[in-house]
Amino acid sequence: MGLHQYIKGLSDLETLRRAPGAFKYQEHSVAAHSFKVASIAQMLGDIEEQSGNPVNWQRLYEKSLNHDYTERFIGDIKTPVKYATPTLRQMLARVEDSMTENFITGEIPERFQDIYRRRLGEGKDDTLEGRILSVSDKVDLLYEGYGEIEKGNPEHVFMEMYQESLRTIATFRDMPSVQYFISDVLPDMLDSDFVERDQLVAMTREILK
Amino acid sequence: MGLHQYIKGLSDLETLRRAPGAFKYQEHSVAAHSFKVASIAQMLGDIEEQSGNPVNWQRLYEKSLNHDYTERFIGDIKTPVKYATPTLRQMLARVEDSMTENFITGEIPERFQDIYRRRLGEGKDDTLEGRILSVSDKVDLLYEGYGEIEKGNPEHVFMEMYQESLRTIATFRDMPSVQYFISDVLPDMLDSDFVERDQLVAMTREILK
Amino acid sequence: MGLHQYIKGLSDLETLRRAPGAFKYQEHSVAAHSFKVASIAQMLGDIEEQSGNPVNWQRLYEKSLNHDYTERFIGDIKTPVKYATPTLRQMLARVEDSMTENFITGEIPERFQDIYRRRLGEGKDDTLEGRILSVSDKVDLLYEGYGEIEKGNPEHVFMEMYQESLRTIATFRDMPSVQYFISDVLPDMLDSDFVERDQLVAMTREILK
Amino acid sequence: MGLHQYIKGLSDLETLRRAPGAFKYQEHSVAAHSFKVASIAQMLGDIEEQSGNPVNWQRLYEKSLNHDYTERFIGDIKTPVKYATPTLRQMLARVEDSMTENFITGEIPERFQDIYRRRLGEGKDDTLEGRILSVSDKVDLLYEGYGEIEKGNPEHVFMEMYQESLRTIATFRDMPSVQYFISDVLPDMLDSDFVERDQLVAMTREILK
Amino acid sequence: MGLHQYIKGLSDLETLRRAPGAFKYQEHSVAAHSFKVASIAQMLGDIEEQSGNPVNWQRLYEKSLNHDYTERFIGDIKTPVKYATPTLRQMLARVEDSMTENFITGEIPERFQDIYRRRLGEGKDDTLEGRILSVSDKVDLLYEGYGEIEKGNPEHVFMEMYQESLRTIATFRDMPSVQYFISDVLPDMLDSDFVERDQLVAMTREILK
Amino acid sequence: MGLHQYIKGLSDLETLRRAPGAFKYQEHSVAAHSFKVASIAQMLGDIEEQSGNPVNWQRLYEKSLNHDYTERFIGDIKTPVKYATPTLRQMLARVEDSMTENFITGEIPERFQDIYRRRLGEGKDDTLEGRILSVSDKVDLLYEGYGEIEKGNPEHVFMEMYQESLRTIATFRDMPSVQYFISDVLPDMLDSDFVERDQLVAMTREILK
Repeated sequence: MGLHQYIKGLSDLETLRRAPGAFKYQEHSVAAHSFKVASIAQMLGDIEEQSGNPVNWQRLYEKSLNHDYTERFIGDIKTPVKYATPTLRQMLARVEDSMTENFITGEIPERFQDIYRRRLGEGKDDTLEGRILSVSDKVDLLYEGYGEIEKGNPEHVFMEMYQESLRTIATFRDMPSVQYFISDVLPDMLDSDFVERDQLVAMTREILK
Repeated sequence: MGLHQYIKGLSDLETLRRAPGAFKYQEHSVAAHSFKVASIAQMLGDIEEQSGNPVNWQRLYEKSLNHDYTERFIGDIKTPVKYATPTLRQMLARVEDSMTENFITGEIPERFQDIYRRRLGEGKDDTLEGRILSVSDKVDLLYEGYGEIEKGNPEHVFMEMYQESLRTIATFRDMPSVQYFISDVLPDMLDSDFVERDQLVAMTREILK
Repeated sequence: MGLHQYIKGLSDLETLRRAPGAFKYQEHSVAAHSFKVASIAQMLGDIEEQSGNPVNWQRLYEKSLNHDYTERFIGDIKTPVKYATPTLRQMLARVEDSMTENFITGEIPERFQDIYRRRLGEGKDDTLEGRILSVSDKVDLLYEGYGEIEKGNPEHVFMEMYQESLRTIATFRDMPSVQYFISDVLPDMLDSDFVERDQLVAMTREILK
Repeated sequence: MGLHQYIKGLSDLETLRRAPGAFKYQEHSVAAHSFKVASIAQMLGDIEEQSGNPVNWQRLYEKSLNHDYTERFIGDIKTPVKYATPTLRQMLARVEDSMTENFITGEIPERFQDIYRRRLGEGKDDTLEGRILSVSDKVDLLYEGYGEIEKGNPEHVFMEMYQESLRTIATFRDMPSVQYFISDVLPDMLDSDFVERDQLVAMTREILK
Repeated sequence: MGLHQYIKGLSDLETLRRAPGAFKYQEHSVAAHSFKVASIAQMLGDIEEQSGNPVNWQRLYEKSLNHDYTERFIGDIKTPVKYATPTLRQMLARVEDSMTENFITGEIPERFQDIYRRRLGEGKDDTLEGRILSVSDKVDLLYEGYGEIEKGNPEHVFMEMYQESLRTIATFRDMPSVQYFISDVLPDMLDSDFVERDQLVAMTREILK
Repeated sequence: MGLHQYIKGLSDLETLRRAPGAFKYQEHSVAAHSFKVASIAQMLGDIEEQSGNPVNWQRLYEKSLNHDYTERFIGDIKTPVKYATPTLRQMLARVEDSMTENFITGEIPERFQDIYRRRLGEGKDDTLEGRILSVSDKVDLLYEGYGEIEKGNPEHVFMEMYQESLRTIATFRDMPSVQYFISDVLPDMLDSDFVERDQLVAMTREILK
């Protein structure tokens, strides 16, 4: 028994689609989301470090890259279900833990088991790296929601996705990286201009003049 | 408040894909699955009736057509999670019930609420119609699993899907419709022939002779 | 010979796409359409019954669930072709009937043949259930057309689809269920709000305040 | 009124999928089919010319490029329907002609109307170019059928597609280009080798040795 | 060795997508693009001929149909790369030529090699047919860009695509076919109307009145 | 100017498909590939460390996560083109560098420019981390090739992809992580069993006994 099953699992994450059950112009896989979250975490980590908060980079990359690997085991449980009652949330977390543990003892060679226990455990703790992960996860969700809204998606769920992620990001406002995101990234995102027909006609005339 | 939200929900079921998280040659939506289950239930109902078991057709159609509508609210929770412990299963069922109730009181006009309470409740009871639904649901799953296997899908999960559904169907063996399915439908399904290259070459020669 | 070919046919309806030949944001299969029409018919049936018109539920479900099964045999013939001349329409109907009959005698065991003759025949007759089917079929088409228009589809064909289905629905205006649809469902459908950029910016400011 | 509607029609052919209603690993649009048929016709034309049969190239390209443009108007009518009775076939052809004529008089400027009448008319006549078109159309169909069979598609319809097209090609056997296709192209197509697991393992060992 | 590899290559062009790396509502394959360019070239050729400029039709069809076949060999190199420096452009062209030559000598029977050398060579020369090809290629690109813009695509790249192709078309303004395109086709394209919600509501009222 | 353009670029990598121009059962985006390569690098890093070779984890994650970001700028240039001549390869690398530099100076705020210069530069150097990246990139390619072969893809290109990546991996055989991959992972990958019809029938009988 080697690590073949672990690698195969990476590919399962390519087929897991995020936010199923609503019409979307553009689908996102859990694999692509993980890539984007790790890249955003890397970006926010730079800002923290430049603001004088030393980042444990190994921990930051590890947390962000692996934070959704266990979605393979539990599937996509809708947020309102997950948070219905504290007891249910706890029980679901326990089931997830035990399925993860089964995977580790059943598929991961013993010499690597402790490493994967750390990697596949909950990453969103109170360390600086855990908080950057929480923010990065929501930044990507914000972009996913915004991407549908700017393409004209009339489904309400994307507006809620946008609002909910922005609200969560705002709760981390004491962090320099979040302040930077709000002041320097968000305005650019909202500014990207929609093309109107009038512009198109004017521009056509200009070119043909 | 009319029934617009109910109709819109039907369309959400078109975007919900079954068995996410594994490579598939052919995707199936919850809407298409519901159609197939209702059609299979209709077919099994005929056999029961011809065997002397009177079918309450309104109940059978209603149960089978609506049996997965509530997947809109809870999402796709993987089977091992759902069945992890009896308590968890019970709690998840309770959450599903309360989300369904919220939908009914929030979106369905009062005069129709009792009807939808019945329709969106658990259909797989011990009545003849509930049992036909249980079988039909698994027959469609069996065909979905078989469809991937015969197309050459190397993922193990489809073999397990095939086995698990066949096993469940076999537990309903006292029903004439299940006996018929095993003796008259299953063999045809397994018999459908794969094309081999040798045949292809032989046939080509035959035509060109 | 059992009913395997009938079940396999259900799956073919999953691959048949409606309204081919125009760009669409969201595809709909004949299988998913059949599910939605049966669910809408069920909804309209409730209203008729509450208005004092008894519904033969078995007949209503049977008609709506099976009304497009024969599309497997004939393919998608565009409406203007189908209705070009009364003679052509009649001849096409006759061909469809004979292909359906071939399927029934060739693939359906004798003991079920009469049942399938009824199910796969024309459902849109003058009975209350036939009329509900006619309306339900158009309600789903209306939603399909509207769905493309609200997503921003510039193809004219969806406007025509919307108009044509609304016009047909209006001809059934003597039915209480159609009156309800026009007064209580349609306004909600047209009301669902589009998100504008200004709102988005305002809401973002509100959250970050 | 210029030729904008004609150009837009080309794009509709990109969304029209061939052979709807059966599971396929690879979809083909009418636009892509038209490109392939014109390219195959060009290839067969070379052989005819080298065999001493002068080709009217303008006519050959024109026929093959435009031969399916009118599918926009009539949709995909399944072959068994089209050929059900000679009268029906004739009537359908007449409807297609009249819809094509409507398009020409309604959307094509007068100065080009005769040209499009020629282009959108039936191309498969008894001229050398008409016969090359008939063969090319079937060669592409043969490749589409073979493509599914070699990928492991268990649907019978692709075997029938393969057989039917090969049989039609064989009826044109007096043509040098068809003789060449049978003797020099077909064997290469059937020869392309499938990879077997044993080979894979052997090759892996070889590389790692 | 026959021409099987050439035919297989046509199918590869069905899987090559144009303009990768940006979100698109509608994908276009190189095969479909080739079909559309040949059809547009045919249309522009008519206008030239009616304006007194005799067209060599065999050459025009041949050039336009085959102009992107060699994309199979080199892949999609982004325009800014291709044009970065004159030397690089020249070197890339030389590599493309040598890969094309390899294909011709390796896969095309000798008796056809000269024909394919001509067909797979650069088509955009200074002949009337070469110039029509240059324009047709950009007309299709213009429609691809416009198609995304009118569907609401917020990506800037489609605006650039639209502008760049219109600018190139304008440089061929001395050609009667380009004058016609600007005066008679472009206005119709820009005029196709977007559906606004107000219209929809008004129309709905009108129908239901 | 903030980092919005950098985040948007991550999303472009979701739409860039790997290995375009050949039929594939399963598509892979550059974003998903980057995620898998970083995860595989992390796995190989563990082995190196357990074998006594200390890993600079920040460097390893950074290299692997960002190694294909610049594909946004240059597109997919086929390998035979890239390697045609040493001069061409050098020139292409220079163009890529200058486009990357343009992006950095044009879109990245000054305080982060040096960081992105490092991240978007060539990662496959002679350090341990650079070598792990080289291997990880090929391990993912090997899995992509194998995934198509085991699903039955008859295209030769996947066999070549499998061979080429295995050969490259073998050249790094002095590394403990590569030895582990060859001895403990590869055999499991090749062993995953294909389902044969006979097994299916036997298993069905077993269940129904």
